[in-house]
Amino acid sequence: MVAEAQALASARLIGIDWGSTGLRAFLIGADGLALVERATAQGASTVSGAEAYAAVLDEAAGDWMRARPELPVLACGMVGSQYGWVDVPYATCPADAQALAAGMRGTPDGKACIVPGLLKDGDGLPPDLMRGEETQIVGALQLRPELREQACIVLPGTHSKWAQVRGGRVERFATHMTGELYAVLRQHSVLGRLMQAPQDGGGFDEAAFCEGVEMARDAGHLGMSHQIFSARSLGVTGRMPSSALADYLSGLLIGHELRAGLEWRADATLDHAPLALVGSPALCARYQLALQRYSGVRALVLDNTAPAGLLCLAQAAGLVAKENAA
Amino acid sequence: MVAEAQALASARLIGIDWGSTGLRAFLIGADGLALVERATAQGASTVSGAEAYAAVLDEAAGDWMRARPELPVLACGMVGSQYGWVDVPYATCPADAQALAAGMRGTPDGKACIVPGLLKDGDGLPPDLMRGEETQIVGALQLRPELREQACIVLPGTHSKWAQVRGGRVERFATHMTGELYAVLRQHSVLGRLMQAPQDGGGFDEAAFCEGVEMARDAGHLGMSHQIFSARSLGVTGRMPSSALADYLSGLLIGHELRAGLEWRADATLDHAPLALVGSPALCARYQLALQRYSGVRALVLDNTAPAGLLCLAQAAGLVAKENAA
Repeated sequence: MVAEAQALASARLIGIDWGSTGLRAFLIGADGLALVERATAQGASTVSGAEAYAAVLDEAAGDWMRARPELPVLACGMVGSQYGWVDVPYATCPADAQALAAGMRGTPDGKACIVPGLLKDGDGLPPDLMRGEETQIVGALQLRPELREQACIVLPGTHSKWAQVRGGRVERFATHMTGELYAVLRQHSVLGRLMQAPQDGGGFDEAAFCEGVEMARDAGHLGMSHQIFSARSLGVTGRMPSSALADYLSGLLIGHELRAGLEWRADATLDHAPLALVGSPALCARYQLALQRYSGVRALVLDNTAPAGLLCLAQAAGLVAKENAA
Repeated sequence: MVAEAQALASARLIGIDWGSTGLRAFLIGADGLALVERATAQGASTVSGAEAYAAVLDEAAGDWMRARPELPVLACGMVGSQYGWVDVPYATCPADAQALAAGMRGTPDGKACIVPGLLKDGDGLPPDLMRGEETQIVGALQLRPELREQACIVLPGTHSKWAQVRGGRVERFATHMTGELYAVLRQHSVLGRLMQAPQDGGGFDEAAFCEGVEMARDAGHLGMSHQIFSARSLGVTGRMPSSALADYLSGLLIGHELRAGLEWRADATLDHAPLALVGSPALCARYQLALQRYSGVRALVLDNTAPAGLLCLAQAAGLVAKENAA
């Protein structure tokens, strides 16, 4: 990060990562890194109607837009959904940066462009969807060119995505509702009743987390809806302290994601291709630990790749000139 | 059902099935069937303290107890949990009616006895728990003696139980949180947003339900937390009408229960032993349909077996004399 005036002078793009529950605005430099970052809680699920979207964008980045009116503004995420600012139709897998750039749509006020989400379809299974993660994947391939030929990219989160990349294109992907399952089970199911509130629990209980991961690995055939009940039975019988139950449940759910995801990866003959984790450092660290416990695999870890993805897509769309010396 | 005065005269036992969310009181005849049944919403999760429990029991069955003060009162379910009326320690698998009867405890006022729950333990896996279902299993074995030698008994519900019976004993069992998962996902997750409210949906969408069951059977290795997201992606893409999404999700979740449960049953070499469904007719019909779609298996279906179980346990405990001509 640099002083904002200096960043503003050298920025190539104003990028917005606008998900359901929050918005992050970036001044992005020629190298695809964020020079300045701002965050608000005004996610797409809290905004309705074109005027309201324009007002939120103005609040988040209007000063940058007025100071550098020639700078393009590119947004990704749920802002492009049917309940967002503009309903941007999904691009279809396989898709690369060029295909995503071709699917961008402008906002009604002409002040910003929005990246399409990605649809996986046509393989005889139900369709799958992402909005926002496609931009992070493009960014990961930009920052780590060795992933372009062949890779399995995992973006952990509320709705984790496992994406298969070949030749710079996202060939297919699968969503796992791991983060949302953890949240609803903890807040709304019988499993949460024995658990301490997060602020009471002290730190992360690594042993309990790993026990959950290993339980999913070794006895996952008994079913996830069976195994999660042990986060109650171990508490009721006093075998596990209540302070450990939440991390145990987290380990079980992430373990089941790995169980299915690693088999999916093997099916895609990606066993020997790099495995990369893209997301917040804390969540990636949790997945890295789970991966090592589950199978000894070590993933490459990348932090926020959305700025690099937004710049790459802006260049692919001709909104920003490509530079030789980036 | 018969007229209440006549039922009262011929009853052998006052039985109470007292779960977390409700209470059912029965006048039980010599054949183990309910002569009269009453239901209230005063489940154990709504009652606290011995006096309050005694008052709820008095409200539900006090008139019967005063009219026939010599009639024993036997209760099962969460009323015997650590947050219930009396904390009745779990009996441990393998257990038969005699072992359960030996574990009963009286209430502080001496007016009722409570059946212990059942603990599965010692197999190297986390423990598992039931309270109330053990009584229904005893009742099923009483009403259908052909199940005693060897059977797999499935009790669908909020927390479904799969129990393995051999020689009249419950050898082991496994809980699946299927019903609770459906409820929390529908009410609190992103999946519920596209679904119509139950009252709008018209009837049961059998085709969508069966599609969910078959998806779990044919592609369940992709993981439950992945597959449930299709209850969103099929709606967003317009492939499935919103009126069908709830039953599709139900089919997916029950399909995953069958996927794990039928493998568990095969592990227990119960493939050729009878499979029985015990529970409400509507839920059993849904599971029967799912079983047939999943594997062509047809289960024996039993309605409420708690009264027969309570009478059998009262007899095993010597609270009620066994009759030769029941």
